[in-house]
Amino acid sequence: FSATITEASQCAISGLPFVRNISELPQDNHGRGGLSHITIAGSALHGMKEVEVWLQTFAPGSRTPIHRHSCEEVFVVLKGTGTLYLASSSHVKYPGTPQEFSIFPNSTFHIPVNDAHQIVNSNEREDLQMLAVISRPPVKVFIYDDWFVPHTAAKLKFPYWDEQCLQSPQKDEL
Amino acid sequence: FSATITEASQCAISGLPFVRNISELPQDNHGRGGLSHITIAGSALHGMKEVEVWLQTFAPGSRTPIHRHSCEEVFVVLKGTGTLYLASSSHVKYPGTPQEFSIFPNSTFHIPVNDAHQIVNSNEREDLQMLAVISRPPVKVFIYDDWFVPHTAAKLKFPYWDEQCLQSPQKDEL
Ligand SMILES: [Zn+2]
Ligand SMILES: [Zn+2]
Repeated sequence: FSATITEASQCAISGLPFVRNISELPQDNHGRGGLSHITIAGSALHGMKEVEVWLQTFAPGSRTPIHRHSCEEVFVVLKGTGTLYLASSSHVKYPGTPQEFSIFPNSTFHIPVNDAHQIVNSNEREDLQMLAVISRPPVKVFIYDDWFVPHTAAKLKFPYWDEQCLQSPQKDEL
Repeated sequence: FSATITEASQCAISGLPFVRNISELPQDNHGRGGLSHITIAGSALHGMKEVEVWLQTFAPGSRTPIHRHSCEEVFVVLKGTGTLYLASSSHVKYPGTPQEFSIFPNSTFHIPVNDAHQIVNSNEREDLQMLAVISRPPVKVFIYDDWFVPHTAAKLKFPYWDEQCLQSPQKDEL
């Protein structure tokens, strides 16, 4: 019963102030070492239907999984440096060796729909902090164990931050 | 002829680096005193289809027009303070007296689809700088001269930064 309350409160749309202080928003690593994720404006949390905005911080050495999604994604790097790996190969069997790009403070880039990508904080000393914007929330992510896994074998997941709201049973009447 | 070249280069998708330095992106006030607008990721400029991201800076005293649009919009305040005016009254004849909200550094809010709104830098000393995210680009904006103009009399405009790309004639073959 208490678990139900906790879940409900993490997924609630109502009762939030209209103008929210980002530094007071819930922050979680969702079981991933080195990641801090804040949903600034989200589908499950705030009722967004067309865009979602996140603030993500990666500790030195931490990274996203190799993944793809069928929505647009825009990044704005606020702090730190890192590497973007991008495989523009949704038309062939598997991602293959990705292109590499340096990312830096005040840089921006967007991920083409369905291109496999990974972002790594390759800086040993500094956090990498980024705003991420996606279309068509909630995002469904297909995860690859490596760059040579066939697209058809990538594993479907809701991201960690949506899992609890989207996959938990609907609220219990008791 | 030279005007054609200028327009084409402002609306070009190709030839941009994949990771872009925001401080090197073109910046314009589009004839509006006190406004600096940078399209970080845009429909006309970068081929975005589902989201668009802007960086906007308002000098003390400057403001957006009172306007509405039928897309979602999320703001993240990076610097400065100001006031959001919001009239949640798309179901009645005109916006009417808006609600007032203080906005501050590291705050976020989103504008419900079709709600009339205005953002004002009400701080006499500091710039107000915000990231804005919209869905369904390019945005079509309906502008109100005041809060009591009927919704049906608001004037349709592409925003200043898209006008040149979206309303100029297609490129001359000569
Ligand atoms: Zn992604
Ligand atoms: Zn707006």
